[in-house]
Amino acid sequence: MENKEINEQCGKQTIKFNHPPVIISRASTVGEMEGQGPLASYFDQIETDPTFGQDSWEKGESEMVRRTVELAISKSGIEKEKIRYIFGGDLLGQLIGTTFGLKDFDIPVFGLYGACSTCGESLSLAAMTVSAGYADYAIAATSSHFGGAEKQFRFPLEYGNQRPLSATWTVTGSGAFVVARTSTEQPMNSYPRISAVTTGKIVDYGVRDSMNMGACMAPAAADVIYQALEDLSLKPNQLDKIITGDLGKVGSEILIKLLRDNGYDIEKQHMDCGVEIFDNSEQDTHSGGSGCGCSAVTLAGYILHKLDEQEWKKILFVPTGALLSTVSYNEGETIPGIAHALLIEQGGGN
Amino acid sequence: MENKEINEQCGKQTIKFNHPPVIISRASTVGEMEGQGPLASYFDQIETDPTFGQDSWEKGESEMVRRTVELAISKSGIEKEKIRYIFGGDLLGQLIGTTFGLKDFDIPVFGLYGACSTCGESLSLAAMTVSAGYADYAIAATSSHFGGAEKQFRFPLEYGNQRPLSATWTVTGSGAFVVARTSTEQPMNSYPRISAVTTGKIVDYGVRDSMNMGACMAPAAADVIYQALEDLSLKPNQLDKIITGDLGKVGSEILIKLLRDNGYDIEKQHMDCGVEIFDNSEQDTHSGGSGCGCSAVTLAGYILHKLDEQEWKKILFVPTGALLSTVSYNEGETIPGIAHALLIEQGGGN
Repeated sequence: MENKEINEQCGKQTIKFNHPPVIISRASTVGEMEGQGPLASYFDQIETDPTFGQDSWEKGESEMVRRTVELAISKSGIEKEKIRYIFGGDLLGQLIGTTFGLKDFDIPVFGLYGACSTCGESLSLAAMTVSAGYADYAIAATSSHFGGAEKQFRFPLEYGNQRPLSATWTVTGSGAFVVARTSTEQPMNSYPRISAVTTGKIVDYGVRDSMNMGACMAPAAADVIYQALEDLSLKPNQLDKIITGDLGKVGSEILIKLLRDNGYDIEKQHMDCGVEIFDNSEQDTHSGGSGCGCSAVTLAGYILHKLDEQEWKKILFVPTGALLSTVSYNEGETIPGIAHALLIEQGGGN
Repeated sequence: MENKEINEQCGKQTIKFNHPPVIISRASTVGEMEGQGPLASYFDQIETDPTFGQDSWEKGESEMVRRTVELAISKSGIEKEKIRYIFGGDLLGQLIGTTFGLKDFDIPVFGLYGACSTCGESLSLAAMTVSAGYADYAIAATSSHFGGAEKQFRFPLEYGNQRPLSATWTVTGSGAFVVARTSTEQPMNSYPRISAVTTGKIVDYGVRDSMNMGACMAPAAADVIYQALEDLSLKPNQLDKIITGDLGKVGSEILIKLLRDNGYDIEKQHMDCGVEIFDNSEQDTHSGGSGCGCSAVTLAGYILHKLDEQEWKKILFVPTGALLSTVSYNEGETIPGIAHALLIEQGGGN
């Protein structure tokens, strides 16, 4: 027991699970813009009404979360009563997207905020919780909404402000995952498993440009990817993909350079959800997609599909977040970043 | 191993720890108003400058968090490098109080939001994390600031609006706790231990009055206290105290009635941090104190002192949160509540 516990602490920031929890079901819901993008066919639900039948963007985001969690539960085949926790969060102040989306599920809730890294934070804590035996099933759910995010962080949409090419486009989307405990008796090898989690530190390079989030987040992504590779004694070429959340084109270039300077060349393996989710030439989304929902729906839809198909067998999933509010920004604070890494594998047991 | 894990799941919503984690050190920092209140002598640091030497309330809150975490670490005698995680949160949108307060500690961070219940949420996750063996030491840190909270949720202080008697006064304060893993070899019985945690659900009774937070949170507090007592097969008279976070006078009356209607009379044991921290007759704080900092500094200062003195040996600590933002409120949403319960004991082993 004692040893088993100790063994899970792996290097400086990583936990390696002796019985890796598995993702037994997931669901994704996106808005119209994402539904016209290159990953459209991988999403479960595409809603063309930006308010999801409600009377505001924020209420629409909550309805999107509700639908997504409901679908993830029904796809899992598990009775709702057996799901012991929901780990959830979004970008809106005081997590109102999550609160009103989850309030009627009658399941204990841990509210989380890691900006756009929240998908990684919620999956990490859900995995840690079930692997410790605190629950047999836990849900990780995150979301973001273009209209609500622009209204909160930038300009009213009606104002039609110009967007610099370094700006990203907040994804309207929600991803939910049912994470299940495994054991020697029940390895559940057919599901994608979370083998390890590396929790990120807040990294501040002093960037202050809220229209260049990629540059704000890249150092945090580089930091946590470096630590995950070190802690797990992995070389980039031992992974099929290293997938960041929403660095976009600009941030991705910085990430690759930062890691190259630290002895790791991830250019071949690197992929960014924000770059994949929109077709910039067609959709004019500039540096790419962003938001908690960006990495969540790309994982739930596209990435786990690739693992199902065994096209990829071992990936590092690294949602990235920029830690700012309009208040901190307007008071002249920098924009620190944070990122959390998950080693997700498919096939075979352990 | 498997059995041990299963055993920790206790009833519907509770985890009972076989090796209860202990709070090996704690620190509290408060503002001038709290420093003039009845609990003044129990706090570690009282700062009379509302901006803590910075140029804004928000930066002041971050400085308060930084000082508090630093003190908790130094009081623990543990090298910073051995502390594997910080679980932290505050009331400000996108957790800027926490972000800028923690960013230079170089320790992995899980950002949390449970409104004023965040102290309970952070201590629960820190306890679950160390007890599972994921860390030997983890920190739980929360904060709130009167000026920053009024500016964000209510009116500019300069406006001098009238406050109804049901309104609470946001505490300027931060509490930080170093939670340590125990084992058969190292029971560390001399420290207060977290024996069990009961995680709350979001409870919505449809209350819409943001000036009556107590009424919004009381149903959630009643729900989680009821479940903790059921899951742990405890009667109120087996506890020295049942301590809610910031229901204030109004909310406390509702809580006691709701639990009485459900077969538990907690009137003798009940205490509310928000009622204790200010002297309403002298300080004109109406229904009492509130904010993440309210329950955090009362636990770090007053409550754990009572446990040190063995005046109390077994308490249920129940921080309470109201889940709203100005956006959700102005869009006509209700104000749901959430609360998390921790069974904290002193003396003897386990």
